[in-house]
Amino acid sequence: MDRRTFGTQALAAAAALAATGITGCRRAALPAVDDGVDHGNAMVRLIDDLSNGSAAERAKILPTTPRRIAMLVYPGMYPLDLLGPKTIFNDLLNTQVHLVAPTSAPVRAGSGVTVSPDVTYATCPAELDVLFVPGGGDGTVALMRDDATLGFLRRMAPTTRWVTSVCTGSLVLGAAGLLQGYRATTHWVTFDVLRALGATPVRQRVVEDRNRMTAAGVTAGLDLALTLTSRLAGENYARAEQLNIEYDPAPPFNAGTPRGAGPRITTAMRRMYAGVVEGAHKAAAATRP
Amino acid sequence: MDRRTFGTQALAAAAALAATGITGCRRAALPAVDDGVDHGNAMVRLIDDLSNGSAAERAKILPTTPRRIAMLVYPGMYPLDLLGPKTIFNDLLNTQVHLVAPTSAPVRAGSGVTVSPDVTYATCPAELDVLFVPGGGDGTVALMRDDATLGFLRRMAPTTRWVTSVCTGSLVLGAAGLLQGYRATTHWVTFDVLRALGATPVRQRVVEDRNRMTAAGVTAGLDLALTLTSRLAGENYARAEQLNIEYDPAPPFNAGTPRGAGPRITTAMRRMYAGVVEGAHKAAAATRP
Repeated sequence: MDRRTFGTQALAAAAALAATGITGCRRAALPAVDDGVDHGNAMVRLIDDLSNGSAAERAKILPTTPRRIAMLVYPGMYPLDLLGPKTIFNDLLNTQVHLVAPTSAPVRAGSGVTVSPDVTYATCPAELDVLFVPGGGDGTVALMRDDATLGFLRRMAPTTRWVTSVCTGSLVLGAAGLLQGYRATTHWVTFDVLRALGATPVRQRVVEDRNRMTAAGVTAGLDLALTLTSRLAGENYARAEQLNIEYDPAPPFNAGTPRGAGPRITTAMRRMYAGVVEGAHKAAAATRP
Repeated sequence: MDRRTFGTQALAAAAALAATGITGCRRAALPAVDDGVDHGNAMVRLIDDLSNGSAAERAKILPTTPRRIAMLVYPGMYPLDLLGPKTIFNDLLNTQVHLVAPTSAPVRAGSGVTVSPDVTYATCPAELDVLFVPGGGDGTVALMRDDATLGFLRRMAPTTRWVTSVCTGSLVLGAAGLLQGYRATTHWVTFDVLRALGATPVRQRVVEDRNRMTAAGVTAGLDLALTLTSRLAGENYARAEQLNIEYDPAPPFNAGTPRGAGPRITTAMRRMYAGVVEGAHKAAAATRP
């Protein structure tokens, strides 16, 4: 389903609501929609339906001040780590989803797919609602030793509402010292690295500890993004989004965990990622005081 | 987890295997890997482990002739429909994943994300292993009436091993006449449109009927891509990939279906998409003989 439609309607709704007195909504670039449906009214009705007459619930769904999310992008990130959650964040109403990198140079995210940062470490707005770090392999390990990135994360975290990651992204948060004393998770293959970063590793799909929210490998980003959606926009809105992306998963195998996949496959994969894991351990050791 | 690592190792393995007598493997652009790990050997070992001594299984995992997958891209497609399955397809060994469009003009797939076709309707290779159509909203409905697209699909289908779609992508296959007499599925909101296209709609996450494989909305693309991976590269390889992307989903709510989300949310979403559904019904009616 095309949530560009949803986005279009969000803008229309924001404009409609702004016209009725709610201020601060994003009005920019309202696209023309000429399919005969009054999208503004459809979205206003959706907000009415989901907020169920509660002004507090309504303010969560459509905040008067734009929400701000910043997602780190870098060479070697795993595309789905970024693009799964980004799809879900893009559906939040009145929300700016920034892609942030050291420079504004486009980053490749798989063959044929390019991700262009719109802000840099220098220009990223502060007081974020969400700071998000996707995972990867060697590129992520390199980031664990990148002072510019670690400095950026340390600078943003104190004024950020939710400091989050998917997959090995938590190792970068950890290298910045941001998981010291927190329960957290990561991709199963780098699970043990977390302890070296001062975190308490937890085998769970999404781990929430105070304002840190970390997810397991790759696809756990969907679970994290929906959980964050419920924290930011309320449970009803998160449920509507889950229905929108028809997230009623039916994996063809029970192989999404080492236990399910069994020792042969798990050992084979561990061997293949031995270099990444070793690099992560070394980087973790190097960050210790 | 970074499957660029996996890709690097795949290339190294292909080169290593080619050197040992297996021919036809892709050797191009073997990147330098200087992390002290012998990736070629690691991948050869992975293939050994997963094929478990079976030459047939081994040939499925690493075919001697490159596999060919073509994924349609177009304005208004839902980014996750394309990029979830693409991530999984990219991890198949010795496989060319093409992005195909009417022209080679880059297509936006959400703010900051650009998808660049590498082949056009005119230059796309025939005898594909997989032809894939992602879904969307108004953009997908427009495609149901686009003669160039419908002609392309009709031309490719007879020599394609698997004709596939995610979400409303099946409506485009249907408009091309390719689901006539087949069981198929689509996003829950456009479920009834399938019947008007001569298909038998089935409420199932992934529907396989002869060589047609269609998936439900958006996130069902992950289930479809893993199922296809098992058909193409064998069940062990598909399990390894499922472990790689740690696909052990734990949705925060039971809201991924209309039944789970309940009537209030479902009705609200139906209203919001009324224009898309009406457009799809009209397009379906227009394709009937």
